Amino acid sequence: MCRKFSLLSSLQRRFVFTSLIAALLFVNAAALRAQTNQTPAANPYSTQLLADLKRIQAAALQSEYAYRQVSYLTNNIGPRLSGSAQAQAAVEYVAKELRRIGLDVQLEKVTVPHWVRGLETGALTEFPGQAQGTTQKIILTALGGSVATPPDGLTAPVIVVNNFAELRGLSRERIAGKIVLFNYRFDEQMAQQGFGGEAYGQAVAYRAAAPSAAARMGAVAALVRSVGGAEYRLPHTGLTRYAKDAPEIPAAAVTAEDADLIASLTTEGQVRMRLTLTPQRLPDAVSYNVIGDFKGSEHPEQIVIVSGHLDSWDLGTGAIDDASGVAVAMQAAQLLKQLNLRPKRTLRVVAWMNEENGVAGGRAYAENHKGEAANHIAAIESDLGAGHPLGFDAKVKPEVMPLLAPVSAVLQTSGAGLSKLVEDTETDITPLANLGVPAFGIWQDSRTYFNYHHTAADTLDKVKPRELAENAAVMSVLAYALANLPQPLPR
Amino acid sequence: MCRKFSLLSSLQRRFVFTSLIAALLFVNAAALRAQTNQTPAANPYSTQLLADLKRIQAAALQSEYAYRQVSYLTNNIGPRLSGSAQAQAAVEYVAKELRRIGLDVQLEKVTVPHWVRGLETGALTEFPGQAQGTTQKIILTALGGSVATPPDGLTAPVIVVNNFAELRGLSRERIAGKIVLFNYRFDEQMAQQGFGGEAYGQAVAYRAAAPSAAARMGAVAALVRSVGGAEYRLPHTGLTRYAKDAPEIPAAAVTAEDADLIASLTTEGQVRMRLTLTPQRLPDAVSYNVIGDFKGSEHPEQIVIVSGHLDSWDLGTGAIDDASGVAVAMQAAQLLKQLNLRPKRTLRVVAWMNEENGVAGGRAYAENHKGEAANHIAAIESDLGAGHPLGFDAKVKPEVMPLLAPVSAVLQTSGAGLSKLVEDTETDITPLANLGVPAFGIWQDSRTYFNYHHTAADTLDKVKPRELAENAAVMSVLAYALANLPQPLPR
Repeated sequence: MCRKFSLLSSLQRRFVFTSLIAALLFVNAAALRAQTNQTPAANPYSTQLLADLKRIQAAALQSEYAYRQVSYLTNNIGPRLSGSAQAQAAVEYVAKELRRIGLDVQLEKVTVPHWVRGLETGALTEFPGQAQGTTQKIILTALGGSVATPPDGLTAPVIVVNNFAELRGLSRERIAGKIVLFNYRFDEQMAQQGFGGEAYGQAVAYRAAAPSAAARMGAVAALVRSVGGAEYRLPHTGLTRYAKDAPEIPAAAVTAEDADLIASLTTEGQVRMRLTLTPQRLPDAVSYNVIGDFKGSEHPEQIVIVSGHLDSWDLGTGAIDDASGVAVAMQAAQLLKQLNLRPKRTLRVVAWMNEENGVAGGRAYAENHKGEAANHIAAIESDLGAGHPLGFDAKVKPEVMPLLAPVSAVLQTSGAGLSKLVEDTETDITPLANLGVPAFGIWQDSRTYFNYHHTAADTLDKVKPRELAENAAVMSVLAYALANLPQPLPR
Repeated sequence: MCRKFSLLSSLQRRFVFTSLIAALLFVNAAALRAQTNQTPAANPYSTQLLADLKRIQAAALQSEYAYRQVSYLTNNIGPRLSGSAQAQAAVEYVAKELRRIGLDVQLEKVTVPHWVRGLETGALTEFPGQAQGTTQKIILTALGGSVATPPDGLTAPVIVVNNFAELRGLSRERIAGKIVLFNYRFDEQMAQQGFGGEAYGQAVAYRAAAPSAAARMGAVAALVRSVGGAEYRLPHTGLTRYAKDAPEIPAAAVTAEDADLIASLTTEGQVRMRLTLTPQRLPDAVSYNVIGDFKGSEHPEQIVIVSGHLDSWDLGTGAIDDASGVAVAMQAAQLLKQLNLRPKRTLRVVAWMNEENGVAGGRAYAENHKGEAANHIAAIESDLGAGHPLGFDAKVKPEVMPLLAPVSAVLQTSGAGLSKLVEDTETDITPLANLGVPAFGIWQDSRTYFNYHHTAADTLDKVKPRELAENAAVMSVLAYALANLPQPLPR
């Protein structure tokens, strides 16, 4: 995921927590009102709908279907970077599986970047106290989209800045010809308080923009401190974005430990580093969004999207980012088939392509379907891992929230009864949200998400079957409610 | 560290915990008696000695000396595998530093193995569900001492066993020509209960002996599940030991995640793997134990050793294993100089060479000094990391323990007042213990030790300055007491 997070001050964070408690109380009170005022005009939730939502929830919590999907996508297919053979295999697998469970499946073409990681090594070749014939190994990984160094690497002095302001305070002469390390720390404490997304938003600005900022001042390469928590010498990859007005220089993420090492040694004296990155930027490739429809019984032209993204970074196997999202979206349709429930509106499963390095899938879909935007009743995506869900977030008109209180009341029985209004929604559905489509994200406990995200350690074992089932319950219950409410949501 | 741990049953562990509490109460009661019965004959701890121990403790807790040593050994020198240029640089640095603080320094020659890690890659080349043109990457690291595969690797089917008993239950035909993965799990729960050493002892049996066990049945290579906690896709290296009666086959540790992946896929169908390891076993090299003496004022011929091991594995920078041990041993001498205290017996700082892959330093010392064994009053080593110390353990006659109760009483004020009798002591001082020398280990809180130990993540940031200072206090106080008690310990 690379959602743009608004930056909250400490005061704001306290406010958000207070608001959450208030919202929860509000949700329950509203749900109670909704359930007790059973006059048809006042309550859009029929007894039947509420009973169905509870059945769906119970079935989701019992099911291993989503976990089996994550297992196949990660263990049997593996990393699924856009343009790779594995991404294509994943497209074919999901299409086949959605057909097997009885959906109408279409592949919608998406043109994606095709970037392939190469060798990546780093070594300090000069540093204070260096013994003859020794170097210090630096563990790093190329940022997605990075250009290559010469095949045998480049060697240059390293200069460390803690943030953009420090860089701006230096002269071009100090930067020119050097490798610049941006040693901006991911705020792990903030992540542990439940604001990992905000901590990510702060730090990821460096991953995205630091290389061009350094290049404008003559740097020959840029390093960023890995964006994420945990200290197990794991580099975190992710997309960098070259600005049009700057030379494209090689860019990599070093581990937190290696950032500390370099920062410490540069306070003692000159540090030189050899950096070798040999990624390739190949011609754009053809890939697909996988789309599976369970046609609605009353309003087949009206669509509720359930989704996750099928592509992943290449270091791990993309279990939490985001095979889990795809799997719970698939399960939303599978459960209805299993329970012999047919939605009134069309439930559309979408496995997005290219969230990680371009969002080509989300953009292409919005472009292709912009004429039908008004018929897209809602779009839901799960892209914050597979931790226990707290509920959902929503980029909607405020008056939508009380309408969904009965949904939260059902979800509260599996500990997922919270909801919150947000300004930014999940990446792939942002283009739809920009067309006015009500957009929802599953809101997970993400306290450990950024420890694993975009690393080699994003693997199946990080997904707990019970927690994944809880996520499937949120996706399925919310989607079925949106597909069956008498009126579309206000927009 | 690779101390041999006795295996304790759950019942025994409960007993140990109960015993610890009892021991602590006993220690404090004994200390009280020792402090109140101040007749010279009954109490070997003079008022002056107790005051000095408290001064040493207070100074240790204030000092950053040990941390500076760890910082230099890890950041400025780096990994220190026996035979490497960094190991030699570390020998020279420690010798110089011990001379600087005023010790008599000798380098005692040690012949060490010289094994150099090479390339190490793994990939599943055939597995259930495999898409055309894809492989699954396997993250692994060669075990120390491993022979190489052919330069371009070997490819063979993989078979998984969970333990030696499962291997023995298979026919030679099932094993011959295959890569055998020993998927024995490190017991993280046991480690979290404070018995990481015992958990390590159970799992490390596979690292040591599995390759030869597999080779005897015709296997072409052996893999072990990494011995350690945490799941950040980190391989843990460590020594393997080839038996004389088995072919030497390439041996590597895969990460916990990769062990899970292979184990899962082999339940579904045939899995083949390409394994490339290109380590070199070079001719033995000359290295050194670094020995620094602070000559005793009354019994210079009597020796109390304070020590850690200077060599480390090569993946990380050996901060917790075991620059920290060396640093707290150095500090034991440095503090006495700083406080103008001279021990009655000689305080001997030893930075051992080659603990990790041969124990050549510990063995050579015992061999060279066996004639002076009776004059070695005690040997202390710290080799269980730099976590908060609980106290010390001791391989001594049981009647020694009450004699040391006043030491524990002093240490209890920094939370390190426990002591326990053990059957096995730290690796480097085991040869001395076998000659009858009373042997002590610093007993750390090791709950996270085995997460980092022998991995790339054993780096300076894992050492907390305050906790290191607490360790220096234990080493210094215990050593000074042993160097100044009127009588040598019973043995």
